[in-house]
Amino acid sequence: MSLRRTLPVSLALGLTMAAGAQADEGMWMPSQLPELAKPLKAGGFKGDPGALATVTAPPLSAVVRAGGGTGSFVSPYGLLLTNHHVAMGVIQYNSSAGHNLIDDGFIARDRADERPSNPDFRVLVTVGFDNVTDQVLAQARGKTGRAYFDAVDAASKQIVADCERAGNVRCSVADMYYGTDFYRISQLELTDVRLVYAPPRAIGNYGDEIDNFMWPRHTGDFTLLRAYVGKDGKPAAYSADNVPYQPPAHLQMSLQGPKEGDFAMLAGYPGITYRHRTAAEFASQIDAVLPRRVALFQQMIDTIEAATKDDTQARTRYASQLQSLKNNRKRAAGELEGLLRSDAKTRRAADEQAMLADADPRYRGDIQALLGTLSQGAAVGERDLLLDQVANQTQLLRSALLLERLRIESAKPDAQRESGFQQRDQALIEGVLKQAQRRYDPAVEKALLSALLARYQQLPDAQRLPEFDTAFGRTPQALATALDGLYARTTLGEEAQRLSRFAAAREGKALAPDPLLALAGPLVAAQLRIEDEKKTRDGEGLRLRPAYMQALFAWRAKQGRAVYPDANRSLRISYGKVEALSPRDGVHYDPVTTVAGIVEKNTNAYPFDAPRPLLQAIAKADFGSTADPALKTQTVNFLTNLDTTGGNSGSPVLNAKGELIGLNFDSNWESVSASWWFDPRFKRAVHVDMRYLRWLLAKVYPAPALLQEMGVPAE
Amino acid sequence: MSLRRTLPVSLALGLTMAAGAQADEGMWMPSQLPELAKPLKAGGFKGDPGALATVTAPPLSAVVRAGGGTGSFVSPYGLLLTNHHVAMGVIQYNSSAGHNLIDDGFIARDRADERPSNPDFRVLVTVGFDNVTDQVLAQARGKTGRAYFDAVDAASKQIVADCERAGNVRCSVADMYYGTDFYRISQLELTDVRLVYAPPRAIGNYGDEIDNFMWPRHTGDFTLLRAYVGKDGKPAAYSADNVPYQPPAHLQMSLQGPKEGDFAMLAGYPGITYRHRTAAEFASQIDAVLPRRVALFQQMIDTIEAATKDDTQARTRYASQLQSLKNNRKRAAGELEGLLRSDAKTRRAADEQAMLADADPRYRGDIQALLGTLSQGAAVGERDLLLDQVANQTQLLRSALLLERLRIESAKPDAQRESGFQQRDQALIEGVLKQAQRRYDPAVEKALLSALLARYQQLPDAQRLPEFDTAFGRTPQALATALDGLYARTTLGEEAQRLSRFAAAREGKALAPDPLLALAGPLVAAQLRIEDEKKTRDGEGLRLRPAYMQALFAWRAKQGRAVYPDANRSLRISYGKVEALSPRDGVHYDPVTTVAGIVEKNTNAYPFDAPRPLLQAIAKADFGSTADPALKTQTVNFLTNLDTTGGNSGSPVLNAKGELIGLNFDSNWESVSASWWFDPRFKRAVHVDMRYLRWLLAKVYPAPALLQEMGVPAE
Repeated sequence: MSLRRTLPVSLALGLTMAAGAQADEGMWMPSQLPELAKPLKAGGFKGDPGALATVTAPPLSAVVRAGGGTGSFVSPYGLLLTNHHVAMGVIQYNSSAGHNLIDDGFIARDRADERPSNPDFRVLVTVGFDNVTDQVLAQARGKTGRAYFDAVDAASKQIVADCERAGNVRCSVADMYYGTDFYRISQLELTDVRLVYAPPRAIGNYGDEIDNFMWPRHTGDFTLLRAYVGKDGKPAAYSADNVPYQPPAHLQMSLQGPKEGDFAMLAGYPGITYRHRTAAEFASQIDAVLPRRVALFQQMIDTIEAATKDDTQARTRYASQLQSLKNNRKRAAGELEGLLRSDAKTRRAADEQAMLADADPRYRGDIQALLGTLSQGAAVGERDLLLDQVANQTQLLRSALLLERLRIESAKPDAQRESGFQQRDQALIEGVLKQAQRRYDPAVEKALLSALLARYQQLPDAQRLPEFDTAFGRTPQALATALDGLYARTTLGEEAQRLSRFAAAREGKALAPDPLLALAGPLVAAQLRIEDEKKTRDGEGLRLRPAYMQALFAWRAKQGRAVYPDANRSLRISYGKVEALSPRDGVHYDPVTTVAGIVEKNTNAYPFDAPRPLLQAIAKADFGSTADPALKTQTVNFLTNLDTTGGNSGSPVLNAKGELIGLNFDSNWESVSASWWFDPRFKRAVHVDMRYLRWLLAKVYPAPALLQEMGVPAE
Repeated sequence: MSLRRTLPVSLALGLTMAAGAQADEGMWMPSQLPELAKPLKAGGFKGDPGALATVTAPPLSAVVRAGGGTGSFVSPYGLLLTNHHVAMGVIQYNSSAGHNLIDDGFIARDRADERPSNPDFRVLVTVGFDNVTDQVLAQARGKTGRAYFDAVDAASKQIVADCERAGNVRCSVADMYYGTDFYRISQLELTDVRLVYAPPRAIGNYGDEIDNFMWPRHTGDFTLLRAYVGKDGKPAAYSADNVPYQPPAHLQMSLQGPKEGDFAMLAGYPGITYRHRTAAEFASQIDAVLPRRVALFQQMIDTIEAATKDDTQARTRYASQLQSLKNNRKRAAGELEGLLRSDAKTRRAADEQAMLADADPRYRGDIQALLGTLSQGAAVGERDLLLDQVANQTQLLRSALLLERLRIESAKPDAQRESGFQQRDQALIEGVLKQAQRRYDPAVEKALLSALLARYQQLPDAQRLPEFDTAFGRTPQALATALDGLYARTTLGEEAQRLSRFAAAREGKALAPDPLLALAGPLVAAQLRIEDEKKTRDGEGLRLRPAYMQALFAWRAKQGRAVYPDANRSLRISYGKVEALSPRDGVHYDPVTTVAGIVEKNTNAYPFDAPRPLLQAIAKADFGSTADPALKTQTVNFLTNLDTTGGNSGSPVLNAKGELIGLNFDSNWESVSASWWFDPRFKRAVHVDMRYLRWLLAKVYPAPALLQEMGVPAE
């Protein structure tokens, strides 16, 4: 059922020849790289594409998951390069009032001075990547809907349990091509990770939110960590006796830098993309989901601003929620803008139409059924968004819903509880219940619920839920009366009241009465029903999407193009080139920035408060061997057309010889829509030039021993 | 005393050869153009530089003052091209609730349909430009200070009176090179000016404040007017019987457009520049004046925002003042940023030092004396700024000061009254007194005065004025008590009270008592003393600066460079070329924009609400003969390095053959500091491409008769 099994050899060969025409789109599974040898070579790659196929062999075995992003080993002694923002938790954990490592940066004097990471920081080294499709689907075949979903879920859990039995590894099952192929991923889990080198915040996060998503960029977003293991070489909890981990491979830093047109490749753990979704899903995203999100977030922004206008305390309490809504609104608007600019709906529809016209008739039944299932989900999209917000944008109502759900789940054995309500999740829930105090104002919560539920009341009958109708009525008057009554009588505004219920709920015991908890009973029942319906649709998706994917494989093969799976946090490789950007009429951006831009942006005030040692070193212009030979100055960041998404933070960028030239840390704003549609005109990834790192370590905040360890000159 | 009289012929020839090295800096008097023949030719100019020397001969006789900017005749029948924003008053005057010409645009069906301008709109055709230096200075020589000032003032007034006696012309005396040369300018005053063609606001002001100062730009900032005269060909007030004015010359629109590197020149009436100020004045501007303005404006912004935080009505009343303070702050900060970026202080100081070291000893005494006079002015700069703001940022106190000054001035014969307080100014004063009602809140006014006068109280003794010390005390406590008392007791918060005083003041009669008016008596006396001191310093400046300028002429001549006079609203010519802009590290802007950018910026919401007919025409891509042959699309705006400043709005931009290719309407943000220092790296002027105008008139909002009248194809 895998792509390679599906395609005849001749086609597989044919497609590799023209894959370069895909304009560098693609987050490839390592196993696909040998098929892409021709375009890789045509792009300038000097290495052996076959060597890229195995996740457990160099160079890929040097690339790991680190925290929420990616990292790579850069020395034989476990030295690990990742982003400053990926390692922020580690830096923060080692900061105190007296010694602020975030602002000051940190250079370990020696290995003994390296600082332990926060306890939940993990480095995961992929040690196994195996196709387990037959095993996952064995019990699912012949089933439909929820039963299909449960069979896949149970088989996956069994595979994970078997895999982890040997010890020392964390296992997972990755769904490739939407239910078509499944892979078992085994990862060594390193928990003793230490802070070695961090630049000051004003280098590592120069420009902060103002420059986020922006190009040209001037940020040294890198940090060096080191992984440790027990003396036996096996993963171990932090101990002073532990020894540096000896990775199966490490990357060699290049002494040359990138220039426009150079081949570049990148490996990492991209999070999630939607590139192979159906034309109907594209249309729904563009015509319904994103406009709806923009409008709803804007309404909540307006609601909070109006409700806190004359109340300074309330304004403070909702500042963070407001900021988050504004960010979400901006992201959704940016994604919509990008998809419209790329005309993604029309283009995806035309592509799918051609694919369906050409598709093997045996797939048509499943594809028709899939489209029906998807349209069922889309039909309740607005309701589900509203109910999500009812639960997530409130404090007391959210608390009541959480408590009721926790009570229900806690009555089950831990393993059978819904994820998010297991014992390991209880501290998080307690935190939510506690912090409600600092984020709650009754007038604002009522205003938000009025806005959300007024929209809910206007949904067609088929979308509404009897429990919600009963709770909040069918008219604005009824809604206002219900909310006034609930918030006048509830005692959940008091922390002690919430925490006493929490103590009962975590035991699965009945909760002492409260009007909001009384309401939560039927509302959670409705939520559970919605969840069940969603799992049923998801099961149908798992069952039916493979037909769509097979039709897509065949269609792409006819076009001479290979198909990569949508991103799912598994290890992927992108290749392309260093490329400039012309995002708008009359505007051209160089692909490489220089330290001149740091000085231009510097205002001596956050977030453009470049450290004095950096400014002095730039003024001194002593760049030595790290200067760009053509530009005659020190470079900072560079731009490629590599295919990335969230999770690629910290991905190493390699040159044609497989040497490390950059560290991925951001995308340009025009790329926000790339999770759905890769537009080669606008999709760029933003990297730290390794020459900038080398210069900082050589001349500005010196760490010559680290440069030596990485095998590069210390000047 | 003029430049040409000062320089020996050999030097005059020498400087023309190297003037091109001035990187296109210069707002030249037309009479200087023959001297610049070599650099003009070297830059690509194909015409006769001699023909540019005479303001009363073509092509300069086609260039006129229009409203607050510049305009040019583009047909033999008085058709006049200027900016949409220059003609905004005319468009507004013809708009009504039923027919909004601002939003809709306007195309006159025929000449009878052309609409009269607002009564105070003027077109001034320069018909005389003569050196009157000897006449102006005859009585001044041998005098100093205030007497020198008064002698120049009296002689200038006499020259104007003599000049205007013939009738039909407005005359003025322009001071060139800071008291070195004086020119009598005679201008035909055309008052019957009519609206012929205006694009909709969303073309003429596309992007509004967001795009103001921005590049790349996509604005059709143009309007066509027509000047009318009496049947006798002489200027006349509006009458239906009037006939189109036949200008002495008109510009011919080119059928070709600009491309990078092309020669370009521009004529117009630039307002004011400070390029030839002393190094001490540069240092004061950069180290004191601008930082002081930024800080003071910011403090007033903060004061108003804090004082109106919980008062919606007050917030509304101060919205416009707040916006204006923010704009002023932004301008001052931008000017400061630019001067720092250009290192203007150091560079001007080095230049002056070299000049002084080389200067003829006979100039040294006057130059020393000048620097002393200037430092006296600089020493009271902070006080004068604070007192200006006390008068201008308040409503009731301003009203009291205005009324008291009006009373004093109105006791004199009209001609002897200070400008601003003559009979013709009374309507304006009445307007200020009336609108105070809508812009006043006692708490905010007191907060502003507290902030301003607290700064005043901290000035050194030598700067403070006994009248202000007596009125507001010497301590914050005394100030608070004084303000509380004044605003509790004054009745000037009532419009009727202000207007009854106005009726008395305009007759020069005593004003009915009020605490603020009682205060205004001594404060106005102090203001008059400051004014007198300033006129004395100005007189010394007029007397002494010519020595500085002579030293500068000699020094520049040694450098092979000519000297243009700082801008003073008289007719000037700049020449240079079409040039791209790279304002920051990694950023490059094309010098020409296209209609693609209109679509990219369009949001369907103000200020990016491109009209549907425009968007449809762009989508249709029917650009015909107005398309750029290389870009294969329609251009919109372009960029040159021409030397411009405020007042150059509406200036025609000519190509090497003297044909009209553009219409100046803005500068880039990096040019804000160019009023002091021309930095060729950043100084650009922004123009409407005449091909965009022609396309709009041909295909989008058609006016074929106008195209025919301008002698260009209607397609």
